Amino acid sequence: MFSTVLVANRGEIALRVARTCRELGLRTVAVHSTADRDSAVVRFADEAVQIGPPAARGSYLNIPAIVEAAQRTGAQAVHPGYGFLSEDPDFAEICEENGITFIGPSPEVMQQLGDKAAARTLMAQAGLPVLPGSTGALASSAEAKETAQQVGYPVILKAVAGGGGRGMAVVRSADGLVRAYNETRAHARAVFGDDRLYLERYVEDARHIEVQVICDRHGAAVHLGERDCSVQRRHQKLIEESPAPNLPDSLRTEMCEAAVRGAKAVGYAGAGTFEFVLAPSGEFYLMEINCRLQVEHPVTEMVTGIDIVREQILVAAGLPLSIRQSDVVVRGSSVECRINAENPARGFVPTPGPLTEFVTPGGPFVRVDTHAHPGWTIGPDYDSLLAKAVVWAPDRAQAVARMDRALSEFRIDGRGVRTTIDFLRRTLARPEFRSATHTTGLVDTMTAEPAPAAEPSPAPAPEGASGRAEEAPAGVS
Amino acid sequence: MFSTVLVANRGEIALRVARTCRELGLRTVAVHSTADRDSAVVRFADEAVQIGPPAARGSYLNIPAIVEAAQRTGAQAVHPGYGFLSEDPDFAEICEENGITFIGPSPEVMQQLGDKAAARTLMAQAGLPVLPGSTGALASSAEAKETAQQVGYPVILKAVAGGGGRGMAVVRSADGLVRAYNETRAHARAVFGDDRLYLERYVEDARHIEVQVICDRHGAAVHLGERDCSVQRRHQKLIEESPAPNLPDSLRTEMCEAAVRGAKAVGYAGAGTFEFVLAPSGEFYLMEINCRLQVEHPVTEMVTGIDIVREQILVAAGLPLSIRQSDVVVRGSSVECRINAENPARGFVPTPGPLTEFVTPGGPFVRVDTHAHPGWTIGPDYDSLLAKAVVWAPDRAQAVARMDRALSEFRIDGRGVRTTIDFLRRTLARPEFRSATHTTGLVDTMTAEPAPAAEPSPAPAPEGASGRAEEAPAGVS
Repeated sequence: MFSTVLVANRGEIALRVARTCRELGLRTVAVHSTADRDSAVVRFADEAVQIGPPAARGSYLNIPAIVEAAQRTGAQAVHPGYGFLSEDPDFAEICEENGITFIGPSPEVMQQLGDKAAARTLMAQAGLPVLPGSTGALASSAEAKETAQQVGYPVILKAVAGGGGRGMAVVRSADGLVRAYNETRAHARAVFGDDRLYLERYVEDARHIEVQVICDRHGAAVHLGERDCSVQRRHQKLIEESPAPNLPDSLRTEMCEAAVRGAKAVGYAGAGTFEFVLAPSGEFYLMEINCRLQVEHPVTEMVTGIDIVREQILVAAGLPLSIRQSDVVVRGSSVECRINAENPARGFVPTPGPLTEFVTPGGPFVRVDTHAHPGWTIGPDYDSLLAKAVVWAPDRAQAVARMDRALSEFRIDGRGVRTTIDFLRRTLARPEFRSATHTTGLVDTMTAEPAPAAEPSPAPAPEGASGRAEEAPAGVS
Repeated sequence: MFSTVLVANRGEIALRVARTCRELGLRTVAVHSTADRDSAVVRFADEAVQIGPPAARGSYLNIPAIVEAAQRTGAQAVHPGYGFLSEDPDFAEICEENGITFIGPSPEVMQQLGDKAAARTLMAQAGLPVLPGSTGALASSAEAKETAQQVGYPVILKAVAGGGGRGMAVVRSADGLVRAYNETRAHARAVFGDDRLYLERYVEDARHIEVQVICDRHGAAVHLGERDCSVQRRHQKLIEESPAPNLPDSLRTEMCEAAVRGAKAVGYAGAGTFEFVLAPSGEFYLMEINCRLQVEHPVTEMVTGIDIVREQILVAAGLPLSIRQSDVVVRGSSVECRINAENPARGFVPTPGPLTEFVTPGGPFVRVDTHAHPGWTIGPDYDSLLAKAVVWAPDRAQAVARMDRALSEFRIDGRGVRTTIDFLRRTLARPEFRSATHTTGLVDTMTAEPAPAAEPSPAPAPEGASGRAEEAPAGVS
């Protein structure tokens, strides 16, 4: 077993990973950009190494700097968190070449599943349901148009190298296809360095259901139940919950077993998520597989009592899974809200700035994961996730009431800083959400309505944001 | 069902109660002294009423002011928290006379069980084991001496009106009895306005085990398992946990069933705690019954998933218990640490002062209950409880590791302010605690040892504190 872990990430997830490392008795090394030198994980970790400038390319994506930091501090393992290098097979491979354990799946599996078009084919072979669409990457806009014609509109264009809700565009008719193809391709090239796209049928009024799996290096694979992440804005999740409400048990079982089957088919080791789209018909289709910890993993932890990061670490150390499928018992209901430093009244534009006040909720069955603290400055360089509020209760109605109470307790103040808290509370209050009949269209419905009197009147979104249409440039899910 | 609840308390427990009220959709009214006008519950509550000066006699013990605040704000129910008026049958009766629901047992039951000597007799009749001792209150020091002679030394003198670890003195030989009798009597008169004492045999090397019960007004009574509260300093609990470790299941069942039998014998309604002393022989004896919420109730909530304050409120509204005994399933292990603003290196003297920094831990399975926030001033008027850190984990070893991690995250700073955090961490690290072989003597053992190098060298406790010997004047448990 390794004794020192380097956390190759920032923000709330870096702190969250370091917390479990400490509980396991492992020494922790934080790496940070110059912008993050006073972050919570830097304060928390046993050692901290500055690795580069605020721009992620020079710091959190800087593989040589991170590997060097690991070597210098004697870290024998690296936890990549989510986003940044977490799904980069090259990083995993370079770690292994340098004798550093990468806490995640093997580079080969990451490579296979990271190509979303190839993963689609692979999983179809393993018997998982996939949507009608292109076989592999599209060669041209003409092929895109032809495939779309075959599967029928609406369709969704996705970057082969995308994931986490990034690099996608929904196209509702042949008219917009070529333009969307070119735009999404340009974006994919800029963000992922890979402009290949694929296409599949887009399911309207769908729910987003995903299954958490955890597998060891000895062939054992279990699922930890599912999450409903249907409250999304531009494919970015805002509210997640477990278990998924209004899901027949037979369907729940079918989805969870499909995920385990998919994981076993590729010899998956580590924690991973199988994301499905659930159609109003009750049919479900695989969207993608995320080879990493998800932002929303805490809701699964709350209902199962299992520390997913702990399991990731133990499995990476070569230990057999400590849990069998029969040990996984879902109790009660858990909800997570992502609190972003954004202004919902202005198209959710990020609102960086210094925090003068930052008081988080507490009390029964409330968990807060955050890297912020009074005096912390929200910078413009990274995603706008400020805190995750997570609650547990014996049932969903109580969990929602508890979340509303928890959200009411935040006291966040700072020059120019706005948050999504009021928007989240309005979402929780929606009858569709209360009755769990909402789909991924809920937030669009809400933002199309006149703003409530309590909030400042909405202004048009700035050019940069509106120009991106239905495609979300930042963040992971 | 009432729609507005007044919380007749302060500090962390007032906020904790108000949180559940909000989750139930109830309007909350906070009452506060002039010293507490910027406290967390005042910020949180829907309405706040200033009821008097810092000294509790004029505010948190001021029954007319509290009843008037309830009437003025339309509160139809009062939650008394712990300490202050929570076990005062007169307060409960006056509430009822004014048409205000007292969230707690009936005044008659509180009266019966509040007289600790009478309660002892009553419970012995109900078949609960009690220690050999006086029958009712002692008439004189001569009777005390005679009774002590009969039951054998050491003995413990206790105030009839005491409770929560206050108004007690252990006497190890006949020499010290008369002096201890007179001192404890004087203290009981000053603190409780009632100088009656009783006496029972004192069990050395004991563990403190208590059982949480909750009963409705229709005769249903369930227990929520037990807590081990053996880490105490001068009868004040510092660390509590559930379930009690190293407790044979048969004994656990026996103790829990004894508590339910006792509650049924007096027609108890509401939440209550049966405190037992567990002798090294494996025999257990009732110490006292607390007719209120305990400070340490969160560990029970964490392992059962049951919000005890919610049940208190529903039961007080006349609803039947929502849980049967078979619904109570204990999962994993929970530990609570009380973080006091005290200086362990100086005899745990309280350290009031303004907080310039106050950052609490978060992340997986960590709960913090606190009324403090940056800018808050810890005043000299109330007990020194600053925060409760509570953790949950699948087993005790993981819970202890998690607690140590959580404690390591606190950042508390302020002029003159010290905390018990380092002392708590040292306690968690003790082999006796790790192996759960500790008794109520653990803290005495620790404080008798030379102080660790990392802490300032100990200075003698100030006169006021040392003069009180083995008797703890403040706080409840």
